[in-house]
Amino acid sequence: MDFERVRRFAEIRREYGSGYINLNPIQRGGILSEAARRALLEFGDGYSVCDFCPPEEARLDAIRRPPIREFMERLAEFLGMDVARVTTRCRESKFIAFRMLAKPGEYVVVDSLAHYSTYLAAELAMLRVKEVAHQGPPEYRISPEAYLQRIEEVERETGKPPAVALLTHVDPHHGNLVDPKPIAKICHEHGVPLILNAAYTAGVMPVDGRSLDVDILAGSGHKSWAASAPTGILALRGELAERILARSAIKGEWSGRSFPKKELALLGCTVMGAPLATLMASFPHVVERVKGWEAEVEKARYLASQLERIEGTRILGVKPKMHTLLHVESEGFYRVSKTHKRRGFFLYEELRQRGIVGVQPGLTRHFKLNTYGLTWEEVKRVAEAFQEIARKYGLSVH
Amino acid sequence: MDFERVRRFAEIRREYGSGYINLNPIQRGGILSEAARRALLEFGDGYSVCDFCPPEEARLDAIRRPPIREFMERLAEFLGMDVARVTTRCRESKFIAFRMLAKPGEYVVVDSLAHYSTYLAAELAMLRVKEVAHQGPPEYRISPEAYLQRIEEVERETGKPPAVALLTHVDPHHGNLVDPKPIAKICHEHGVPLILNAAYTAGVMPVDGRSLDVDILAGSGHKSWAASAPTGILALRGELAERILARSAIKGEWSGRSFPKKELALLGCTVMGAPLATLMASFPHVVERVKGWEAEVEKARYLASQLERIEGTRILGVKPKMHTLLHVESEGFYRVSKTHKRRGFFLYEELRQRGIVGVQPGLTRHFKLNTYGLTWEEVKRVAEAFQEIARKYGLSVH
Repeated sequence: MDFERVRRFAEIRREYGSGYINLNPIQRGGILSEAARRALLEFGDGYSVCDFCPPEEARLDAIRRPPIREFMERLAEFLGMDVARVTTRCRESKFIAFRMLAKPGEYVVVDSLAHYSTYLAAELAMLRVKEVAHQGPPEYRISPEAYLQRIEEVERETGKPPAVALLTHVDPHHGNLVDPKPIAKICHEHGVPLILNAAYTAGVMPVDGRSLDVDILAGSGHKSWAASAPTGILALRGELAERILARSAIKGEWSGRSFPKKELALLGCTVMGAPLATLMASFPHVVERVKGWEAEVEKARYLASQLERIEGTRILGVKPKMHTLLHVESEGFYRVSKTHKRRGFFLYEELRQRGIVGVQPGLTRHFKLNTYGLTWEEVKRVAEAFQEIARKYGLSVH
Repeated sequence: MDFERVRRFAEIRREYGSGYINLNPIQRGGILSEAARRALLEFGDGYSVCDFCPPEEARLDAIRRPPIREFMERLAEFLGMDVARVTTRCRESKFIAFRMLAKPGEYVVVDSLAHYSTYLAAELAMLRVKEVAHQGPPEYRISPEAYLQRIEEVERETGKPPAVALLTHVDPHHGNLVDPKPIAKICHEHGVPLILNAAYTAGVMPVDGRSLDVDILAGSGHKSWAASAPTGILALRGELAERILARSAIKGEWSGRSFPKKELALLGCTVMGAPLATLMASFPHVVERVKGWEAEVEKARYLASQLERIEGTRILGVKPKMHTLLHVESEGFYRVSKTHKRRGFFLYEELRQRGIVGVQPGLTRHFKLNTYGLTWEEVKRVAEAFQEIARKYGLSVH
């Protein structure tokens, strides 16, 4: 291959680096800490964390230099769980739990606001999905009773409870926080383990699996732990840990080879380098930052109230907001887009001119943003930018 | 959680950084290029590559800024394949191919020198493994006839050919290079697609899937593409690409939600940040470096010949060596270890004192090393170090 054709890849740069306020809902919790930035370079090379892989165990979670083993113990403790592993993505954590707890064709009960990857994880594990209804706009509530209904439906249909249930702790659409406890209670009364998808919560707000009574917790390092992609968290409680982390049982019929130390569903090792190093290096920062969660929610509520001052604009989901992810519905900006020569792109472009990015280009009627980790000054700049744009296009600001 | 208990994670450092010659067999091909080191910092933050995710496709391989889409096209081209995707690990690529080409209970035919993760990938996909015999020590050859035998065995046993076959291009035990072509021919005559596990080859030596006649190529970014972990490559030819990259077909029975743009077995997106950026940034470097493969093999052969001068020491596998991964068998060093107060650790410690690491601590009778990317001067230093240690402990050097 001709070098000139590929030379440009060596020069890739991030266009929206520092200097912009990035409101992208999936990005706020994944901005690296300074310690993580140092760790990235330190452990950038390939299998950099494997220098001291203990031959007798030969598994990522057994490594003591760097202290991966201890990190996973502290991670489990921090989440109020018994055992933790790092996976390549939250979706892989969900797949692993589905794969190891259910047989092909069995049911998993899932809230209907789940991330798309929850559905795909179930599909890849060859499971059938029974969706828990939400209560529709504008709040999109998920109730424990709706879980009960679906569990009983599965029982009637198949003569046994679903293999597993999943709740999205904060959903990616409206940023609703759902209390897992009453749902866990119902699940457990029916003998159903509950997975909590904590991609938007663990790492930014306090999450204690034990007091929430969840059996499995799936998290996302790049979404909420100030870590590089791809990093997922799989934290487990009780006896389920053994089922989910079951060791490989395959044996070569010719060679006799077997791999009884390897955790099957993790395919042995997972994140063998840089992103794990960032997750570890950011951990002290994360342990501290979750204590400031209330202040983060305050900033989101402030922005919500300022956006709702704009004509025809409201925030969807349960209020008051309990998370920094906001779903904005704006009939006002939508109306502007209809006659603007840039159509829906005007909002994105106006914001960008003001140093603000992360609102999806083209969207005006429904868009999402996340204030997590912004300073008060930045939140105010964002609020003022939206209001300024509104006024510029003739929308009133109450 | 108390900050003081976790503070140390912020300070993790690599003990064997620059200044050491690291012979670790899995690490030589994963050392970052300078461009990759820059890209790491540029794209360190969480979902850093998702700033311009096109809403209409919303998939990693569709992103044009940074040029991920074009990168994947060039990557496929470079490998002589039709389509390429980046996965989280080579083992995930293998799992994806197994999962999408075979149903639970079906057979996959695999060479008996395969990496352990090949067995686990099959087990996770609920497949049965039929192992292709090797011809034993000292060469451990794998023959096309042995593939034929296993394919026919599966046909006799089940009335149909195996769902898929896998060949390990260079095996991790002895560094044997196996020619895929005659094996592919046999597979294709029986209607069996062939996966090439090119974890130790693609990225360090020229690999052209089309001329090797393989259907699926699995590669490892952190092993052989000067990229950070975790990064895998999945490259596909012909109609199989559609089967393996099949889109999600699940539909929420209550919500009607469906995800027809998402590639099921990839769970949507895979490496959404830093390691992908390193793979891309190193690509021009990789395109160039594979042209120097013969010189790399020369260095390995030189070291092999120098090690074999040590009393009771030989290199296993097919000779002359066709790869930079060497399996050393040393009855000499083993004999020394029996009476040394540090037992088998003496060799590791003597090497470390000489600035050389990567030989597994404790091993003397059988150990592996990899010369890839070392300068001639470094290779000579390694050879001299081994000979010096041999002499120190009374082993003759011919």
